[in-house]
Amino acid sequence: MARPKARRTLQEFALIRTLQRTFGQGGPSIVQGMGDDAAVVAANPKTWYILTTDLLAQGVHFDLRTASLESVGYKAAMANLSDLAAMGATPRYCLVSLAAPSGRTENDIHQLYRGMMRACRRHRVRLIGGDTSGSKQGLFVNLTLIGTTPRGRALFRRGARIGDSVYVTGTLGDSRAGLSLLQEPKRKAARQRSTRLPFSRRRMLINRHLYPTARIQEGCMLARYRLASAAIDLSDGLSGDLHHLCEQSHVGAEIELAALPLSPACRAFASCLNADPVQLALSGGEDYELLFTVPHRNQPRLEHLARVRGFRMTAIGRITARRTGVMVKRPDGTRRSLPSISYEHFRRVT
Amino acid sequence: MARPKARRTLQEFALIRTLQRTFGQGGPSIVQGMGDDAAVVAANPKTWYILTTDLLAQGVHFDLRTASLESVGYKAAMANLSDLAAMGATPRYCLVSLAAPSGRTENDIHQLYRGMMRACRRHRVRLIGGDTSGSKQGLFVNLTLIGTTPRGRALFRRGARIGDSVYVTGTLGDSRAGLSLLQEPKRKAARQRSTRLPFSRRRMLINRHLYPTARIQEGCMLARYRLASAAIDLSDGLSGDLHHLCEQSHVGAEIELAALPLSPACRAFASCLNADPVQLALSGGEDYELLFTVPHRNQPRLEHLARVRGFRMTAIGRITARRTGVMVKRPDGTRRSLPSISYEHFRRVT
Repeated sequence: MARPKARRTLQEFALIRTLQRTFGQGGPSIVQGMGDDAAVVAANPKTWYILTTDLLAQGVHFDLRTASLESVGYKAAMANLSDLAAMGATPRYCLVSLAAPSGRTENDIHQLYRGMMRACRRHRVRLIGGDTSGSKQGLFVNLTLIGTTPRGRALFRRGARIGDSVYVTGTLGDSRAGLSLLQEPKRKAARQRSTRLPFSRRRMLINRHLYPTARIQEGCMLARYRLASAAIDLSDGLSGDLHHLCEQSHVGAEIELAALPLSPACRAFASCLNADPVQLALSGGEDYELLFTVPHRNQPRLEHLARVRGFRMTAIGRITARRTGVMVKRPDGTRRSLPSISYEHFRRVT
Repeated sequence: MARPKARRTLQEFALIRTLQRTFGQGGPSIVQGMGDDAAVVAANPKTWYILTTDLLAQGVHFDLRTASLESVGYKAAMANLSDLAAMGATPRYCLVSLAAPSGRTENDIHQLYRGMMRACRRHRVRLIGGDTSGSKQGLFVNLTLIGTTPRGRALFRRGARIGDSVYVTGTLGDSRAGLSLLQEPKRKAARQRSTRLPFSRRRMLINRHLYPTARIQEGCMLARYRLASAAIDLSDGLSGDLHHLCEQSHVGAEIELAALPLSPACRAFASCLNADPVQLALSGGEDYELLFTVPHRNQPRLEHLARVRGFRMTAIGRITARRTGVMVKRPDGTRRSLPSISYEHFRRVT
């Protein structure tokens, strides 16, 4: 699922905010409406239902020249699962809508479903409904995922407080590097340089792009033990998503560039292409890692539980006052402001 | 929202059945998975959650040459509400995904939302989540609606028994007639004939096409008093949807053509165009009325409640043994088999 190199400006987020203000209503059983990774509804006195929906369009969210239908399905499901992970939810049910052009065969649709179900099975998600129809142009897939948390245990974007530590799971920038490798045949010069990259590393980066992992277990642990004060998943890239979290929590943040977790493959890729791996980590999207904030008192317990369970969780900075904005600290101790760079769905991509 | 004159063959339904067999899994809290108007999940000991999702594609499900964005939004919401009505559910929450080409302005998207929210407000449905992204070609809208019923009170397609009476709400064929009127400028001859149709009747038929009414209150009444043994909503047209209901209930049916409820406007339209209004009622889709079956013992209560509440409900036939298939009885007493004619989403429309 290749992502065209386009950037999301404030336009889409401004639109979502306007819609939210105009049409997003609260209600007695609605814990969280529009504006977080997913909506939260109190289904019964003990359980919250977490609901998320995403529409993926051919040529915008995926490119069938660089991804198979099976991997498109897999990634579509993982992107939605990642939204549930960011809420600390256990995924339960899935509904799929599909609009396919007449050129697509039944086998194509099966491939797509097979990918989705492979991702869902990993997390015991059940397919309970769907809708299949025609499309004049291109393939469109919409997934709605429903998960649960115990009442009062969901994670939101809005809970970060000054002094909290900022953490991420896994490593950053791999997906963006993988996409570059997939798109290589178009760029001959880059291809020649990146052929120095060992096959195993190439494969790891491409797999991280095509078959990302939603951090469901990590999210559930954070929610269950009330370790995190806020969380979001990294779909737009660290710089963009950190801005969303800070905006909703009314805080600023300072990220230490030297602390960003980079995989050896990503470092090797950057070195082959004379690129800056830190830049990949900051602005490369679709990592589907979790970005979360942890109050000081919870840090020892978090570090212990992460170690015991084998989760990679790295402290990359701390939450500051809103007026300081979102900053990065270079290894030499100097600071600069971090611009919000994320994917722009509305710009026409060619 | 104009619908191209294309017919759904068994292809799509066969595909859905295959997907259902391959990927649709049951589970402890799943009351109904794929294969009905909506999925049913036991949310708590007293309540069932009813979930439905639908993806609408420009040029397939709606045509912006004959419908405004506001009416497209309205109808999209009503089509989903109608699925909930067919399950006897009270609608509660709504999630909307949208893929819009870059040519669409923020105002366009507001128009679409305004239409959706107008339909939702009528039934106190809350918008709790959404996703807005780009599309290379055409507008795509996906709605997920969630409703509730008391435990054990949902209506399914599979409960019809031999001897039950077959009922429909409202009148049939109006939407198809309205679509013909909207498409008129292309067909000069028809236009000349239909100009004899009074303006009020034209308007009524066009409104029935652009702004259908989901029979939520009727569905809730059927479920609450356990009056119906099976139900489905008429989106594909009576002949197609009756076949679905019969197939899932493993029964046949006999429909009396003379009993089909036709509006005066539909009769007037047919008379102006020398068309058969019964044919419009049988095969015209998107009426969004309910088709349901009622055991003999419940009929007096149903008729009483419908009268008291001012619901139009008409007995149009009865359920027969599976081997007799789906038949229609002409006014002269002769019978013929009713073919399953419904909308084919997969055929390319031009």
